Amino acid sequence: MNKEQFRQQGIEIRKDFPLFNSADVVYLDNAATSQKPECVIQAERDFYEKSNANPLRGLYALAEKATKEYEDARKTVADFIGAADSSEIIFTRNATEGLNLAAYCLSQIMLKEDDEIVVSIMEHHSNLLPWQQAARRTGAVLKFIECSKDGVITDEAFENAITDKTKIVAMTQISNVLGSKNDIKKYASYCHDRGIVFVADGAQSVPHIPVNVQELGVDFLSFSGHKMFAPMGIGVLYGRKSLLEQMPPFLYGGEMIESVTRESAVYAEIPHKFEAGTVNASGAVALAEAIRYINKTGFDVIQEREDYLTKYAFEKMTAVNGVHIIGSPDASSHHGILSFTLDGVHPHDVASILDADNIGVRAGHHCAQPLLAYLGISSSTRVSLAFYNTCEEIDTFVDSLSQIRRQMGYGE
Amino acid sequence: MNKEQFRQQGIEIRKDFPLFNSADVVYLDNAATSQKPECVIQAERDFYEKSNANPLRGLYALAEKATKEYEDARKTVADFIGAADSSEIIFTRNATEGLNLAAYCLSQIMLKEDDEIVVSIMEHHSNLLPWQQAARRTGAVLKFIECSKDGVITDEAFENAITDKTKIVAMTQISNVLGSKNDIKKYASYCHDRGIVFVADGAQSVPHIPVNVQELGVDFLSFSGHKMFAPMGIGVLYGRKSLLEQMPPFLYGGEMIESVTRESAVYAEIPHKFEAGTVNASGAVALAEAIRYINKTGFDVIQEREDYLTKYAFEKMTAVNGVHIIGSPDASSHHGILSFTLDGVHPHDVASILDADNIGVRAGHHCAQPLLAYLGISSSTRVSLAFYNTCEEIDTFVDSLSQIRRQMGYGE
Repeated sequence: MNKEQFRQQGIEIRKDFPLFNSADVVYLDNAATSQKPECVIQAERDFYEKSNANPLRGLYALAEKATKEYEDARKTVADFIGAADSSEIIFTRNATEGLNLAAYCLSQIMLKEDDEIVVSIMEHHSNLLPWQQAARRTGAVLKFIECSKDGVITDEAFENAITDKTKIVAMTQISNVLGSKNDIKKYASYCHDRGIVFVADGAQSVPHIPVNVQELGVDFLSFSGHKMFAPMGIGVLYGRKSLLEQMPPFLYGGEMIESVTRESAVYAEIPHKFEAGTVNASGAVALAEAIRYINKTGFDVIQEREDYLTKYAFEKMTAVNGVHIIGSPDASSHHGILSFTLDGVHPHDVASILDADNIGVRAGHHCAQPLLAYLGISSSTRVSLAFYNTCEEIDTFVDSLSQIRRQMGYGE
Repeated sequence: MNKEQFRQQGIEIRKDFPLFNSADVVYLDNAATSQKPECVIQAERDFYEKSNANPLRGLYALAEKATKEYEDARKTVADFIGAADSSEIIFTRNATEGLNLAAYCLSQIMLKEDDEIVVSIMEHHSNLLPWQQAARRTGAVLKFIECSKDGVITDEAFENAITDKTKIVAMTQISNVLGSKNDIKKYASYCHDRGIVFVADGAQSVPHIPVNVQELGVDFLSFSGHKMFAPMGIGVLYGRKSLLEQMPPFLYGGEMIESVTRESAVYAEIPHKFEAGTVNASGAVALAEAIRYINKTGFDVIQEREDYLTKYAFEKMTAVNGVHIIGSPDASSHHGILSFTLDGVHPHDVASILDADNIGVRAGHHCAQPLLAYLGISSSTRVSLAFYNTCEEIDTFVDSLSQIRRQMGYGE
């Protein structure tokens, strides 16, 4: 594909996203949340106009329709990530809730004093704090896998962190700060050979690359709908059936029980055991529509565009005086995520000055303070790309970026 | 208002709800979930078309817009229920999550072995199971306030359940099975005089009657958006500031921290301490729109219509041979909820036969098994009304209901 074809393709894709018609923004904050295509927005409306009832409990046509759409959505998610069975798909609010569920419930069946939980240093707080808490509750020890300054976890670093006491390893597939991808297939396999449970954070990977839980061999995978073109308020925790069945419930209430007495309760089978109270059926239905949209677009197109855009942005950004991209010096290791510092300018100021040119980027610790501390910085500015971004947007961003140091009085 | 005016008013109101134009259903399952007015459906679309970004973290215009809309929604909720401060409003997924949060976090600061938690026998499982778990974790004892067969909790029954060891009382404002309303203002006051925390389940009350947390004097109030014309996936936990501030977090992750190290974390101020991960901003915005819709309609209109419809249905149903309405013999005590049995016909069959006439009602234990066991039944059929229902719908329902025993071969 030549540059003009790439440009035309971008124009066509952007027609699917109503926000780009109504908001004047160069949106480069896709790792925080994605924009929503018309078909997803409409799927929620359709549910409320034609199918709305409380699923799972009803004996009438409308409730059965709502139930079918909700459970069909579960099947769509299962197929999308290659789960062996729909019952392994738990609908959550977001990736964070899924990781909390996994940490809280796994810790009750797996951890005792002096056992070890291992996380990588590049985890988002959502895949760190729940394990800190699990350690605190059980007396287990939380250990860290270090990475190199350019975001690589070596086999040696990984294996050094694992001991005979290791019971759980929790690791992100793609870092939300560095963009680097961990070979979780290799690590999950290493863990399974030793009876260690492997929990993956897929928040930054599932929207961008094909993810198959059985091929990867992970026991858990948590991700959010809102980062993959679906609405806010819906997420997914995949869990291996044999583990989910052993785990106690997370939240308690309606829908997750078989029977209740004053003193106790018998809980429902998975997945409903983990879905207490009225479910977010419209969110699940819209997530399924987002998956159909991704499948229709194709990960080949998504990855081709994101790889191209990443390389394009990487090269232009590194040419700007004073810009330092964090992590790998190789653009292809960044998967659309380019965190950077600009000499002499605070990241918050960088973001604010870019905002004056209607460019939306993120600045701060990106919910990964231990990683930033390890890298010796307290914050950075982050550009994060989606397949609907364009080279023209990157040009606009880099033009604005290249003016900042001069505006701040640093000369050229 | 005469009957014709009432009918005309219903026709006008129903124009606000698109589902009634597209689905052929007599929808009498409003205690399970409500239908959504056009303005609410559109509010979600508007958010995604014009304001979508991840709130709370952004330094650019779009993210600031999303943040403002989200926090404005919190203020709308605070005003709606008379909270003293917006920071007392925690956005949850649903009422169930709010009650789990309250039980889990309160138990950590309030309960020790042999302390007592008191719930009423008419609680939904969502306001029972979390307290069973809290008791199990802490060694506290769970005690029950009994009610009369017609759904009344007497002062004597209430006071008999309270001892010097009581630390928490959890009670629904309106029963989802009986429709009866508990005088939680009186009970909350009684509790406060004794240093007991009072937790109210508002899932069935907040959509139907004016609720003011300061007037009621409750410490916590949990309710769901989807039962009050808002989307699924958004709910509210009100909590008294002084208690929320003492409570540890519930879920852990992004947004709910001030700072994180490898070993520990400092948590954010309320309410964000309790909102881990990306929030459901579009859900909150749509809930705020639902509140504006309720306010525009007026609780005077909502209550007048629901009271009228309840009385109308009550009288017609009791005239049907073999029908027994559970709870109070006084229609005005039912607040739109009429659970019943039909002699010789299983409630599931009642619901299925009604479904053949496109009438949607609920049958089962209504997530309140201890109450049903106490009443000596295992299930019932439940009709639950909203202000958009009509006398004509009730006529259709009662006509169908009155045929069931004959269809089942019981003669007249």
